[in-house]
Amino acid sequence: MKPVTVTGGQDDIEGQQGTGAQARLEGLARVSYDANGLVPAIAQDAGTGKVLMMAYMTEATLRETLETGRMVYWSRSRQERWAKGDTSGDRQWVKEARYDCDGDTLLFVVDQEGAGACHTGEFTCFFRSFGDAGAQS
Amino acid sequence: MKPVTVTGGQDDIEGQQGTGAQARLEGLARVSYDANGLVPAIAQDAGTGKVLMMAYMTEATLRETLETGRMVYWSRSRQERWAKGDTSGDRQWVKEARYDCDGDTLLFVVDQEGAGACHTGEFTCFFRSFGDAGAQS
Repeated sequence: MKPVTVTGGQDDIEGQQGTGAQARLEGLARVSYDANGLVPAIAQDAGTGKVLMMAYMTEATLRETLETGRMVYWSRSRQERWAKGDTSGDRQWVKEARYDCDGDTLLFVVDQEGAGACHTGEFTCFFRSFGDAGAQS
Repeated sequence: MKPVTVTGGQDDIEGQQGTGAQARLEGLARVSYDANGLVPAIAQDAGTGKVLMMAYMTEATLRETLETGRMVYWSRSRQERWAKGDTSGDRQWVKEARYDCDGDTLLFVVDQEGAGACHTGEFTCFFRSFGDAGAQS
């Protein structure tokens, strides 16, 4: 599988927006959090284009992620900060950090370290398929 | 940008699982819904590998999506079934339908019709960037 350049024409828009600290402040002000103070964050592998996982961030772990360049989530099950890879070694390093038109979902293009993103040992958490969509059941 | 084959080695796993109606039933039984009966669904463009959007599905709109091969969400703001593209013409056709290790997030690889997925006219909803992650603010 060939690496995919995920940015494409989006660079132009980023350029208009300003870069660095200014774009970060604008972005942080546009993010909205749910009733639990969380925002969903999608991680996509930079090398393969595969979607790796989706988890949640608080405003604090989002800020930490942007400042350190390493993916830091919030574990809903453990109710604690979750620096991805602290236990497994499968850390994720941010190549691009984006937010959607409504500001209620984040997208990070990352370099995935180790075996992959999934606690099962699979590269991506989305390793199971529903089979052929569109075929009558 | 080159098209990316998003499946890769995941086909082997799908093969072990069985295909068609059997895989669909297994999958539907593994999906878990939040307190509002919703599950987040990520749409990724098959041609470019770009993540287009994230929205939510009910069990009914998930089943309809799998049966018809067309993306049907649940609009949280309007509280109604939302067949993507009915108004805009920007329909999405399912190429792959996946669920994650916890069964609480869905991933669809789709053919995007029309101008793109975003109501702003952008191809992807994730057209805004936080700037360079990892640079000190």
